[in-house]
Amino acid sequence: MRYKVTVCYDGTNYCGWQVQKNGTSIQTVIEHALEVITKTPSSIASSGRTDAKVHARGQVFHFDSDANLKEDQWVKALNANLPEDIVIRSVEKADDLFHSRFDAVWKRYSYTVNMGEYDPFKRHYEYEYNRRLDVRSMREASKYLIGTHDFSAFNANSPEERPNQVRTIYEITVRESKGRVILEYVGNGFLRYMVRMMTQTLIEVGKKKIKPEKVKELLDAAKKNSVPFNAPPEGLCLEEVGYTEYESGISPVSK
Amino acid sequence: MRYKVTVCYDGTNYCGWQVQKNGTSIQTVIEHALEVITKTPSSIASSGRTDAKVHARGQVFHFDSDANLKEDQWVKALNANLPEDIVIRSVEKADDLFHSRFDAVWKRYSYTVNMGEYDPFKRHYEYEYNRRLDVRSMREASKYLIGTHDFSAFNANSPEERPNQVRTIYEITVRESKGRVILEYVGNGFLRYMVRMMTQTLIEVGKKKIKPEKVKELLDAAKKNSVPFNAPPEGLCLEEVGYTEYESGISPVSK
Repeated sequence: MRYKVTVCYDGTNYCGWQVQKNGTSIQTVIEHALEVITKTPSSIASSGRTDAKVHARGQVFHFDSDANLKEDQWVKALNANLPEDIVIRSVEKADDLFHSRFDAVWKRYSYTVNMGEYDPFKRHYEYEYNRRLDVRSMREASKYLIGTHDFSAFNANSPEERPNQVRTIYEITVRESKGRVILEYVGNGFLRYMVRMMTQTLIEVGKKKIKPEKVKELLDAAKKNSVPFNAPPEGLCLEEVGYTEYESGISPVSK
Repeated sequence: MRYKVTVCYDGTNYCGWQVQKNGTSIQTVIEHALEVITKTPSSIASSGRTDAKVHARGQVFHFDSDANLKEDQWVKALNANLPEDIVIRSVEKADDLFHSRFDAVWKRYSYTVNMGEYDPFKRHYEYEYNRRLDVRSMREASKYLIGTHDFSAFNANSPEERPNQVRTIYEITVRESKGRVILEYVGNGFLRYMVRMMTQTLIEVGKKKIKPEKVKELLDAAKKNSVPFNAPPEGLCLEEVGYTEYESGISPVSK
């Protein structure tokens, strides 16, 4: 039986989703929990990697098992065997052909920047920029990113690794709440560091270091390494992975 | 010169304010930072202790130094020498006779209980109760605690240590926000564990394990060890210490 799982994690103490030489990966910890439950080696496949210190509220992965457990029993058993910073939100029976990565139709990421005073309680969950940004200019600049573009400029993969760098961004919202700027991105896929590179570029606009139109220029040039900006990982969160056509209207992130 | 300092800290990784045999104390870390700056052994005195894993947004301490630094230079120098979970908010010149503990007129604490689903991002900053509570009954029960009472029932100190257990609570608010119950207490002083014992008692009321009137009974009996309840430390935060007469009207905690 194949299962589709939604998982929420605080990525602070991990080297990211993917197994790495150094540090503990989220994938390893979840596979270990599955092995404890099923007594057999298990492997899981996610909708995509998240980098070190990046969070997820709605990462999705799938796994196969013949263990005779109901969906809610899987949730309980997994959470009982996971540390307090990784939480399974749901386990659903899936089609045998379901694939968390190949079937994903869209993803939604949020990025939070604190413009107010340094907040030690949120330091792992937002970028502590702690200075004012021009949010209106950031919103203006974000419009250039929406649509289907070659995102080569906003990409850390090598072209060999990821030859097609055309992606579609359906929606970007830039809103202000409690001294924070919260950016949300919905797209059909994101290249490595793409959200963080776009975000830092918009932050540079907010600092008035570059003009909003510069974003269009960078996009149009579609030249790798032309964007030297990469926002810190702690502000980033994978909010949701969609498996049906995206319907516009981002619901506000509950913070 | 004597200085009055306001400090904010995430208590998660500390054994509390006070120096202990095991673990690192917040006091030790701040004294160390002062020593690095002034090149002389320093000691600081706070408005009172906070326990292991308890937080503060507005703890106050004082120290003496002849170092020739302006108030904002002290803030910068201290923050440059403190870890990211301890932040100095202000340093003000104070009267030579000012004492952070003896001159404190009131204190305000908050306690946050999550009634919604487990939140790994807030697990260090709230009590993850994750079930529904009857907030209206908790509010009703909280009324009995307001005023001047012998708080022997809500006290972990031995009578020898703290012979006078009469305290005045000026105000308690119990409000609901985003699936959380947030309790705020303002009083002229609090005994050891008093806020956590009052909170857990109100939680027991919210669970309908005890009736609101039971709180009055416990108070009236004024018997030590009669309250077996102690809410977990991570939900507690010392919000503010007041040095002038308390004026009613708790401002909502910004979360």
